[in-house]
Amino acid sequence: MPGYQELDSARLLSLLDELKTEYEEVRAKGLRLDMSRGKPGTDQLDLSDAMLANLKPGELSTEGGFECRNYGLLDGIPEAKRLMGEILGVSPETTFIGGNASLSLMHDCITFSFIHGLPGATPWCRQDTVKVLCPSPGYDRHFAMAEHFGFELVPVAMTAEGPDMDQVEALIRDSAVKAIWCVPKYSNPLGITFSDTVVRRMAALSPAAPDFRIYWDNAYAVHHLDTQNPDILLNLMEELERNGRQDMAFTFTSTSKITYAGGGISAAGMSKTNFDWFMAHKTVQTIGYDKVNQLRHARMFPDMGHVTAHMAKHAAILRPKFQTVLDMLEPLGRDGIASWNKPNGGYFISLDTLPGCAKRVGQLCKEAGVVLTTPGATFPYGKDPEDKNIRIAPTLPPISELEQAAALLCLCVRIASAEKILADRTGSSRPRAGAAH
Amino acid sequence: MPGYQELDSARLLSLLDELKTEYEEVRAKGLRLDMSRGKPGTDQLDLSDAMLANLKPGELSTEGGFECRNYGLLDGIPEAKRLMGEILGVSPETTFIGGNASLSLMHDCITFSFIHGLPGATPWCRQDTVKVLCPSPGYDRHFAMAEHFGFELVPVAMTAEGPDMDQVEALIRDSAVKAIWCVPKYSNPLGITFSDTVVRRMAALSPAAPDFRIYWDNAYAVHHLDTQNPDILLNLMEELERNGRQDMAFTFTSTSKITYAGGGISAAGMSKTNFDWFMAHKTVQTIGYDKVNQLRHARMFPDMGHVTAHMAKHAAILRPKFQTVLDMLEPLGRDGIASWNKPNGGYFISLDTLPGCAKRVGQLCKEAGVVLTTPGATFPYGKDPEDKNIRIAPTLPPISELEQAAALLCLCVRIASAEKILADRTGSSRPRAGAAH
Repeated sequence: MPGYQELDSARLLSLLDELKTEYEEVRAKGLRLDMSRGKPGTDQLDLSDAMLANLKPGELSTEGGFECRNYGLLDGIPEAKRLMGEILGVSPETTFIGGNASLSLMHDCITFSFIHGLPGATPWCRQDTVKVLCPSPGYDRHFAMAEHFGFELVPVAMTAEGPDMDQVEALIRDSAVKAIWCVPKYSNPLGITFSDTVVRRMAALSPAAPDFRIYWDNAYAVHHLDTQNPDILLNLMEELERNGRQDMAFTFTSTSKITYAGGGISAAGMSKTNFDWFMAHKTVQTIGYDKVNQLRHARMFPDMGHVTAHMAKHAAILRPKFQTVLDMLEPLGRDGIASWNKPNGGYFISLDTLPGCAKRVGQLCKEAGVVLTTPGATFPYGKDPEDKNIRIAPTLPPISELEQAAALLCLCVRIASAEKILADRTGSSRPRAGAAH
Repeated sequence: MPGYQELDSARLLSLLDELKTEYEEVRAKGLRLDMSRGKPGTDQLDLSDAMLANLKPGELSTEGGFECRNYGLLDGIPEAKRLMGEILGVSPETTFIGGNASLSLMHDCITFSFIHGLPGATPWCRQDTVKVLCPSPGYDRHFAMAEHFGFELVPVAMTAEGPDMDQVEALIRDSAVKAIWCVPKYSNPLGITFSDTVVRRMAALSPAAPDFRIYWDNAYAVHHLDTQNPDILLNLMEELERNGRQDMAFTFTSTSKITYAGGGISAAGMSKTNFDWFMAHKTVQTIGYDKVNQLRHARMFPDMGHVTAHMAKHAAILRPKFQTVLDMLEPLGRDGIASWNKPNGGYFISLDTLPGCAKRVGQLCKEAGVVLTTPGATFPYGKDPEDKNIRIAPTLPPISELEQAAALLCLCVRIASAEKILADRTGSSRPRAGAAH
């Protein structure tokens, strides 16, 4: 079968009619499915239920004998610092253990930079303009946080190797540029891992602003799908240290997608200078995070071998889900109306439709009961300049539901594509007759 | 025996010699005791060890069926909102559940006010001066937080009924005054509960600043020592609502001294307007706090009856500790060299020495191995204008250690008092001969 672009308009119109009939049949089923967020499935959460009772009375002290149930240890218990430091690739001494949300630790870094200023620098609240580089598509919550602070979001293109470093290197000559968001491994949503070249160029940046920071959100550090051939990410902190630029990055991770998304622990790893700065501000904010939960995690994962074995169980659950969606997308590729990545890890499949179709697909899916991540959300200000990127989160639904949701998604991509091609040919706005409003 | 003030100088000098000899004997023991912070003792922490295993696989959803192990429910699970709302005396709907530190929720309120501004108000970061009222003696971490933001700390006297409301009512005519810190029940460190009159006057304040807020840190809401006759605190939010001033307060509490200081949950209760404002800023900071731990707490305390019964067990442990210290202080009162409160709840005994003696007592204790809260810490900028207040935290040490620590404390009060009286009489600086440097 030729691609959609090769079909003549009469054929396309008749195809569109068929697709819409099919769509109405699906819509009549009254589906209520969610592929919007990167949430683990129930079977994944079950993998960590040993944590519900792995602490016993009388065994509630750290390896150094510190009582976890009481106040103290602002930066976390030693065993949690070691575990999370190893996941981050940062020294345990300068790894801070937070609550269940690494997003909050990123918010802390921005808040402290804004109010008090980074070491030796003017607080951002006293600067006219603060710009943040946003490799796109990227993580919507990163962009929303920066926007909420009133910062200017500067899009940077993503390549197959990571952010377009030519653009980054040019943009950081502007001293108003204070930060760049990165999800360097199995990135959200592209699923790619930054290449060694990108990491090395990142570690060699010479920004005009001395208080420029790389926000290195290594959320999927150990979240491989292909456990035999996992992606390898170069250690940014080591590269920075080699260049004497170790203060230029904050690194983050959490166990949200290792243990419980609603009950994990988070971590921020950084240089000694940044750590001392961070601690000086944290000490007025809290006496310390939940050490009992830190101990649960440390007992569950006494070393990285336990993490690897545990993550293999996640992968075994997730691989068929990803494969289901990938298989169902395949015909869209043959018809020349979509392209996507095949990730080796992480939580997302990033689908590109024909330009100008993503919002329409989101709308069609929603009206038939399947919620996708709002199209555009993966770009600064929620605006996808080409209106083509759709983030698919296949992890939460059981496979039977996933099949229904993906089938609907494919159908909607077909409808939106046919509409768009026809509209482009006639120069008119897209035909919206029929039921699919 | 007459009081120290009535002794002639020769008698006082000889007494001082005896006291110092005794001091040297104690110092030689090499004590290492801590009465510095309001930490629960191990036996108190044991009371909540049922929480270590009170959640079972398959029983991890809220009463509404929401999966606690996964993402979501930014403001907390319904049963935790109900529990903490009841402790706070605020509607569950407008009660936000945080992590283990209520201090962090206070920090959030200040941060959001500083960066984004309270509803309809200019952000504090764009104001020249922000002043915060600090009823003193008070909680050192409150004062430290406000100081860290660069705010001006304005001391307000504490009376037996709460803050001196004449002072408060006068000070809030200044539009730079944006907040007042309050620990209204079993206050830190005085152990007093604000009278109905004080609460009513607080609820009737007409501050010049529309974004003035009462930070009502109800940390000891259910922490009675005398469970038969607990102090009753008037409900501030109800009084505010009666006056149409419900936006004027943020209320806070936590289970740090109910369950685990290192693994509890916290809450902030407020008006609908403030809650919506708070949520709008929290939503960029986190997807939600640890709901698994919220569920542990909700299962442990299905209603307030369970809280009351649990707190009676704490009281049974704490009463003898407080009584031990109070009994040992008694002779100091007879000698006219100290006064103190007898609290009905909370975590502290607030001791007033003769003016000019507190720092010396702290130093003497420290040199003999007993750590007290740094004298002065209970005042803005760490400066007690009369240098007389000492916060005693009798909860952590076992009674045997507490007796040793309190005996040393009393001895040091005697030494410092004798030195001070003698120095005042001669007009010279205090005699510092001997070993007690």
